[in-house]
Amino acid sequence: MIKRSYLLFLADAQNTADAKTALGLRDWAPEACVAQWSLPGCTVDVGIPYLAPAEAFAAGARSLLIGVAPVGGAIPPFWVPALLEALEAGLDIVSGLHDRLADIPAVAEATARLGRQLHEIRHVSRRFGVASGRPRTGKRLLTVGTDCALGKKYTALAIARELESRGREADFRATGQTGIMIAGSGVPIDAVVADFVAGAAEWLSPNAPAEHWDVIEGQGSLFHPAYAGVTLGLLHGSQPDAIVLCHDPTRLHINAYPDYPIPALEDAIDLYLRTGRLTNAAIRCVGVSMNTSRLPATEARAAMALAERRLNLPVVDPIRGGVGAIVDLLEMK
Amino acid sequence: MIKRSYLLFLADAQNTADAKTALGLRDWAPEACVAQWSLPGCTVDVGIPYLAPAEAFAAGARSLLIGVAPVGGAIPPFWVPALLEALEAGLDIVSGLHDRLADIPAVAEATARLGRQLHEIRHVSRRFGVASGRPRTGKRLLTVGTDCALGKKYTALAIARELESRGREADFRATGQTGIMIAGSGVPIDAVVADFVAGAAEWLSPNAPAEHWDVIEGQGSLFHPAYAGVTLGLLHGSQPDAIVLCHDPTRLHINAYPDYPIPALEDAIDLYLRTGRLTNAAIRCVGVSMNTSRLPATEARAAMALAERRLNLPVVDPIRGGVGAIVDLLEMK
Repeated sequence: MIKRSYLLFLADAQNTADAKTALGLRDWAPEACVAQWSLPGCTVDVGIPYLAPAEAFAAGARSLLIGVAPVGGAIPPFWVPALLEALEAGLDIVSGLHDRLADIPAVAEATARLGRQLHEIRHVSRRFGVASGRPRTGKRLLTVGTDCALGKKYTALAIARELESRGREADFRATGQTGIMIAGSGVPIDAVVADFVAGAAEWLSPNAPAEHWDVIEGQGSLFHPAYAGVTLGLLHGSQPDAIVLCHDPTRLHINAYPDYPIPALEDAIDLYLRTGRLTNAAIRCVGVSMNTSRLPATEARAAMALAERRLNLPVVDPIRGGVGAIVDLLEMK
Repeated sequence: MIKRSYLLFLADAQNTADAKTALGLRDWAPEACVAQWSLPGCTVDVGIPYLAPAEAFAAGARSLLIGVAPVGGAIPPFWVPALLEALEAGLDIVSGLHDRLADIPAVAEATARLGRQLHEIRHVSRRFGVASGRPRTGKRLLTVGTDCALGKKYTALAIARELESRGREADFRATGQTGIMIAGSGVPIDAVVADFVAGAAEWLSPNAPAEHWDVIEGQGSLFHPAYAGVTLGLLHGSQPDAIVLCHDPTRLHINAYPDYPIPALEDAIDLYLRTGRLTNAAIRCVGVSMNTSRLPATEARAAMALAERRLNLPVVDPIRGGVGAIVDLLEMK
């Protein structure tokens, strides 16, 4: 379990794209973001207090969260003194980087000596079992998509929050790095060994009270030539009662795969329900979450209205108008 | 690459079920099986010469192949002297066990000192990339199934052999442990990290001459609540031109999952084609491979004839009558 009171580390970030992780945390877990800290040359400010590790610890921070992706992916040597300063100040470190902090001898030594923890979110340390396929108590919603990177995490967070704001019991269940940092726990599902993906998804949303909703962050897409297997394993293990299809109406093909068209909404819903039915015969689609960020407001409204008529389902944009219509439908049954 | 001239190690096996791996090798790669060897108390004989490691090396063996699964899965300490004797005699070791031989200090030390290799087939050392989704040259056939463990490996081997016997170029592509031992190479696809399953399948059957067939061993089933994601990743990365559906007509539910019924053949073929079409629009089903080993001959013939009429496709049992009818259909186009 991650200690969820963060000092956001921006290193020498030059622009907001570099600091995507830190910004996601600030937006979705502001109560967990105690302060920001950076190295000389950093030009990004995420708009919260600036504190060095010792000050941040005094202010309640317990984890240094790596909020940037270094160019090239490798951890630059000039970060190491900053990481050591954080460990000495009493902070654990939370990292979604591919390179392991534990492979840096000075960091590993200080971590062990000081009794700190390294949460390397991209790497799975826990072993999962094979999925049982047995139903669990409680209700589950999974966000799915016509593609990757079009709002599955955002939609799940928004739905979980809307349920809570209505006084319902709900948990956001994270399956990707930023989601795990936001939630403080979760499973980086695409890093699990293939045989255990569905089992890991079962573990992630255990038995719960009958009216409790687990709102599970989806990954990939059944229409993605590289990741569909991950998506199917997550779908089967999650055993969702409800799915929400996430879609970007301006995207014409799978991101970075120009030969793979985005499926029609009807086809996508049909395949998710057909395959999802294997582990939950009562699965239903409760709406479409449309990412209309690239459209002017009038065109966005028109695209959503058209889809709503075609599908006879609520179509929302979580940023433009929220997910209320989907949660209304969830509560109807 | 495994040195494919084997001394089959039977340890203290008490029955043929214990020695399933060794028997599979003897049946499917007899030319690679130089001899068998065992420990005191073994009561299994796979019907080839019995030689100790030094004699086996002199007779041409280059790898000790662990042909049994120890009870409980762990490698018993009383095996270790035998493993060391094999390494000293000049043999590599090939193992499909879950426990790593490299974790036994004496084995690791002898391996390094003598310059031998440990092929631990259940563990993936190579890193695979993300699938590109791009078409490759050459032809591909993938065996798929209504369930696990009903003949996908056997069917693929039989089809590859039948193609070769007709003078066609063909390669069996292994995706499981016994298949890899038979072929001398392959990818244990269910041990690959989920994100890279389709990429590993692309790597396994690379570009080939236009008329060459890769005959790929399938894994799992789209109808299996734990393994469907593996099956889908393998299907997408293999981009098969042809699938053969493997089926056991006496099985009523997914093995060990009594709540999961075996799908109708029509539904199974339809879902494999629908999902397979994503990466190869020309995918077709060229037949059903029926495992009728639990039926008397007359009932087996009746079951196959009925399925043939229902599906209008060749239905064969590779053991009772061979796969000729499927290969006839393959050659038609």
